[in-house]
Amino acid sequence: MAINYPNGKRFIPKSTNIFNNSSSDSTTNMKSALNTYSGRGQTLEEDINETNEYYLLKGLAVIHKKPTPIQIVKVDYPKRSAATIKEAYFKTPSTTDYNGVYNGKYIDFEAKETKNKTSFPLRNIHSHQIKHLKAVRKQGGVGFFIIRFTTINETYALDSEYVFEFWDKRNENRKSIPKTFFEEYGIKIPLGLHPRVPYLPAIEELISKLQ
Amino acid sequence: MAINYPNGKRFIPKSTNIFNNSSSDSTTNMKSALNTYSGRGQTLEEDINETNEYYLLKGLAVIHKKPTPIQIVKVDYPKRSAATIKEAYFKTPSTTDYNGVYNGKYIDFEAKETKNKTSFPLRNIHSHQIKHLKAVRKQGGVGFFIIRFTTINETYALDSEYVFEFWDKRNENRKSIPKTFFEEYGIKIPLGLHPRVPYLPAIEELISKLQ
Repeated sequence: MAINYPNGKRFIPKSTNIFNNSSSDSTTNMKSALNTYSGRGQTLEEDINETNEYYLLKGLAVIHKKPTPIQIVKVDYPKRSAATIKEAYFKTPSTTDYNGVYNGKYIDFEAKETKNKTSFPLRNIHSHQIKHLKAVRKQGGVGFFIIRFTTINETYALDSEYVFEFWDKRNENRKSIPKTFFEEYGIKIPLGLHPRVPYLPAIEELISKLQ
Repeated sequence: MAINYPNGKRFIPKSTNIFNNSSSDSTTNMKSALNTYSGRGQTLEEDINETNEYYLLKGLAVIHKKPTPIQIVKVDYPKRSAATIKEAYFKTPSTTDYNGVYNGKYIDFEAKETKNKTSFPLRNIHSHQIKHLKAVRKQGGVGFFIIRFTTINETYALDSEYVFEFWDKRNENRKSIPKTFFEEYGIKIPLGLHPRVPYLPAIEELISKLQ
């Protein structure tokens, strides 16, 4: 079951959802079981969320995914403990999905997947993400993208500065960032088991280049 | 119109809500008009959101309120552009409400109001906020509370370290933080017009004490 956000993002209901008694649960649980067994088939977002939990528990970094912004219109609350939202809409976010702190530094990134093998299409990026990351960089924060090429299962961190350059040329000739660019200027994140996306060494490298 | 969150927070519908055609709009708009005219009656949250917009526009800081986390159960999407959430629930957040970057530093705070005149009751603080701010401090981030005594209209920034001390003693004798403590150890934030809660000088002071 996949629901599309207005901006094209996938919405995946949590298998741990205590409120969801619908029949789709069995499917979701089976998928989770498969993921646990094979260690495959998880989205980049799921992998990063697990990684963030790991870093938090180990005291290595405090990085969280921001909740999806929702415009709430109607709420029923028969009891205080069971307020039910009956009508709400997805809002366009004004920031990226992930931020937090590592060693006193402000960390901010967006995570994206592509099925393409040879390039990352710029249409996967939204203008509010670029605008936000430009403001973050201006304030001395560490901003970047985590991009996964799902077909070949390769994941890279790419400094937001590079993405700005491609983005600002997107109305000229550029519609994508070549895979070779990631190989040369990105920081490859090895596939891990625990954590699944060990991105802290990449952050270390990005910080060292800032100074 | 005020709706209570499960955790007791007020939920205030935005008057700029383009989806809301209910009859309660007129009340909300009248309240907004009064706010604009008199410059009074805004909540601390509204004041901080305005302040954050000001700081963002001026390029002084990038600090945003996090969206309220929602567990979505049912979504109708007759058209891609009009996905409607039909059933959802408030989730307990795992962080504070505000975070961002100032001069490269990670900034994190929670904002609270009290009608009390002589002390700030600790029951206004939730354990997940303390847990998160302790993790932030351990990572070298700047963590604090912005507390407003609404009856006397005084606002203070208080280093999260002080709040931890009171919090950890809350099962002994402490149920609140005395106003006199804020006067001695807090940083008073003057009432401003534009921005309304000029809290950056307080952050400067907190940073200087960290080093």
